[in-house]
Amino acid sequence: MDNKLPSHFSCRTFLWCIYCIFFTADLFAQQVPAKSDSTLIKSFFDLALTGNKLNEDLLFLTKKIGPRISGSANAQKSVDWARKIMMEINPDSVYLQRVMVPHWERGAKEISFFKTGNKKTEMTVCAFGGSVATDGLLHAKVIEVNSWTELAALKESEVKGRFIFFNRAMDLREVETYKAYLGAVDQRSKGAIEAAKKGAIGVLVRSLTLKTDDIPHTGAVGYDITIKKIPAAAIGIQSAEILSVALRKNANLTFSLHMQCKQLPEEVSYNLIGELRGTTFPKDFITVGAHLDSWDLGEGAADDGTGVVQTLEVLRILKNMDKRPERSFRAILYMNEESGAHGAIQYAKEAREKNENHIAVLESDVGGFTPRGFRVDGSRTAVKQIKTWMELFVPYGVGEIYPNQRGIDLVPMKGLSKVLISLECDDQRFFDIHHSTSDTYDKLNIREVKLGAASMTSLAYLILKYGL
Amino acid sequence: MDNKLPSHFSCRTFLWCIYCIFFTADLFAQQVPAKSDSTLIKSFFDLALTGNKLNEDLLFLTKKIGPRISGSANAQKSVDWARKIMMEINPDSVYLQRVMVPHWERGAKEISFFKTGNKKTEMTVCAFGGSVATDGLLHAKVIEVNSWTELAALKESEVKGRFIFFNRAMDLREVETYKAYLGAVDQRSKGAIEAAKKGAIGVLVRSLTLKTDDIPHTGAVGYDITIKKIPAAAIGIQSAEILSVALRKNANLTFSLHMQCKQLPEEVSYNLIGELRGTTFPKDFITVGAHLDSWDLGEGAADDGTGVVQTLEVLRILKNMDKRPERSFRAILYMNEESGAHGAIQYAKEAREKNENHIAVLESDVGGFTPRGFRVDGSRTAVKQIKTWMELFVPYGVGEIYPNQRGIDLVPMKGLSKVLISLECDDQRFFDIHHSTSDTYDKLNIREVKLGAASMTSLAYLILKYGL
Repeated sequence: MDNKLPSHFSCRTFLWCIYCIFFTADLFAQQVPAKSDSTLIKSFFDLALTGNKLNEDLLFLTKKIGPRISGSANAQKSVDWARKIMMEINPDSVYLQRVMVPHWERGAKEISFFKTGNKKTEMTVCAFGGSVATDGLLHAKVIEVNSWTELAALKESEVKGRFIFFNRAMDLREVETYKAYLGAVDQRSKGAIEAAKKGAIGVLVRSLTLKTDDIPHTGAVGYDITIKKIPAAAIGIQSAEILSVALRKNANLTFSLHMQCKQLPEEVSYNLIGELRGTTFPKDFITVGAHLDSWDLGEGAADDGTGVVQTLEVLRILKNMDKRPERSFRAILYMNEESGAHGAIQYAKEAREKNENHIAVLESDVGGFTPRGFRVDGSRTAVKQIKTWMELFVPYGVGEIYPNQRGIDLVPMKGLSKVLISLECDDQRFFDIHHSTSDTYDKLNIREVKLGAASMTSLAYLILKYGL
Repeated sequence: MDNKLPSHFSCRTFLWCIYCIFFTADLFAQQVPAKSDSTLIKSFFDLALTGNKLNEDLLFLTKKIGPRISGSANAQKSVDWARKIMMEINPDSVYLQRVMVPHWERGAKEISFFKTGNKKTEMTVCAFGGSVATDGLLHAKVIEVNSWTELAALKESEVKGRFIFFNRAMDLREVETYKAYLGAVDQRSKGAIEAAKKGAIGVLVRSLTLKTDDIPHTGAVGYDITIKKIPAAAIGIQSAEILSVALRKNANLTFSLHMQCKQLPEEVSYNLIGELRGTTFPKDFITVGAHLDSWDLGEGAADDGTGVVQTLEVLRILKNMDKRPERSFRAILYMNEESGAHGAIQYAKEAREKNENHIAVLESDVGGFTPRGFRVDGSRTAVKQIKTWMELFVPYGVGEIYPNQRGIDLVPMKGLSKVLISLECDDQRFFDIHHSTSDTYDKLNIREVKLGAASMTSLAYLILKYGL
């Protein structure tokens, strides 16, 4: 058999053919929404904005259950409660997905102060999630660093036996607060490792917030199993400023820290899934989700109570549609996003083992504020398809498509789903409350959360109907 | 002289020429921003986001002065304070514009309840601004109406001597909350007039909010000088629901209302203006403004403390630029927007008398939340020009141009300024707090207010430089 192309079939012609094939395929792939789609989408928004269930759910989750760190009794309560809600919604199936999760406890409230001469100044701190305890009241001198270069320039002899105080602020000039967060969170994820390498006995990290209050913001500390784990705490912005000024006056002041956190044995926990089976392509899955666990401070309201109740609302609205979806839908409440995403990893593992065909996975985990659009990563054709639908979202202020999705629970599905999508919201307020005692129900506007739920429902509906 | 066109000059050619002239004029009119403009705009955002003065101003205005209804001692305090701030900024001139304003006082807290048999149910109400008092405790039966048609259908004999209870809610399904407000505010502006025409002795109006709490929201009542003024009050949403249910059970229940408000003699007050004289076209004016007065409840934080401190910040940033503006700039703090806009009317009157050439007037009066863009009314060419600049605003999320500006203080300038512009913000939260005791500093996110100030500065800068 001759594999050569006929001589008159030039390279240019060949490329042209390839282009035409792709271009035509692309054209065919574009699914133009029907007029009834805009009517249905309007009805999703009407239902969400006039309904009471989402608000009742959020009140229960934040006020009756409250904070629900992985492995805790409260985390289990939230699974039981959400399961009951899903059962009431009554999709085709509601089931649990078993997963082992870490179980860390803060213990008694942290004690922290510094002394210059006889003067004692109280500091506001909180242990980072996963941090080791201090073994009693730890006293040491402090070295402030504002960049990795500054840390690198310090000799081991200078660092040994001291606290390293990472005081680099989130950049106030960054309009997109999430970018400002990404520009400073490395102090929490790498600080304890890099400081321990040089012999530090603990680290303090300026809280990751753009507000100038004195509320410390927790989050998962980064450790390296090959490096000694040292205590790591967030320090409130005002405390950080006071400490910084004091250090300039007296570099030898003594800082004291007492943290009684405990790493307990892993616990059995669960992802929770509610499923609607597709009528035409039951083996194609579209998922919408959020994470049930939260940090132990506040009420886990914005992070990610809003995503949880939005996910339940999407399931509720889709279940109550007259017509069953063409493809299968899953509402997923992941466990343990905050300290390892064990739930999301488990979900992806089982999806791979069962060879499930995921078309799109969507998560809401940026606070539940006024939605602006979606962040989409995935195949070019699929992203293009989603963009063509955005005219349907413009009347609701949610018509923007951005790159770089931000759902941590979606990352394990990379390569397993055609697209990963995260709801994008106005983010000016998120880091005022993120991972802190301020993350409470009263900080939220329920209409904003509802608009997010309706947006998620609408996009899920279109993918369920047309595929990608 | 022959006025006829040459015979070969057909009608079609004529229209074509007209089209060409307009089209060419339009092209010439388009001012393409220089690259340095984007650098400058970035610097405006950097300055606003990193500065502290705007926050200090807002804290002083809301916490040290507080509510400042027209004609009150607090309103005068706010004029004195803002004048001092403007003097510190030190533009070319700072001056007051005298204006007579109404002076209404709420008096002692309103008393309200209804009785069914021996059971007394307390109601949460507040007098509308400008309302007459009740002359002691007023008792009467209540008729609930949910539309003008319902009111029209009632006979005078049915209405006479009763309260009319306007219970039409803001439409929860309306994504744009301002539209929902416009759809219900007629009950406040026309309710007392229409009810009095039929002999009602008072009106209660369901509070204009989308939140389901029990905080009443005030605002200016509409009266007609030819119709008897009757007491008019806002009723909290929960109270309204309770009353409505009670009326269904017992249409003859007795409602009681005691309001001790007083209309005092008009007072002398002031608009405050800070001016930067233009270098090239000093007689062309671009203004940025907000209103200093507020309602007497809350702290006048969102309405319009945010606009006030944004206006001061715009003046501060423009004054501190290396280069003086080509055209003249005015920062205007209007008096009495809330109950007659006497300050804005006075400003327009003097502008007309002095034959001043206003290019653009801008106001910020929608709460100071995350800015999205601008609402622009005016000449087609000018609006088109502003649209071409919006690419410079997209990086800050403020790139949208909408029709129908919403600055009440700009209305008297219609026909006197080429364009009227209002800052457009995310409005989901505004009516939760609008005109109520909830309008306090803690409900605001200071970064959102700063983003608005930078957006206003940037647009003012471009118009000052290029004109319209």
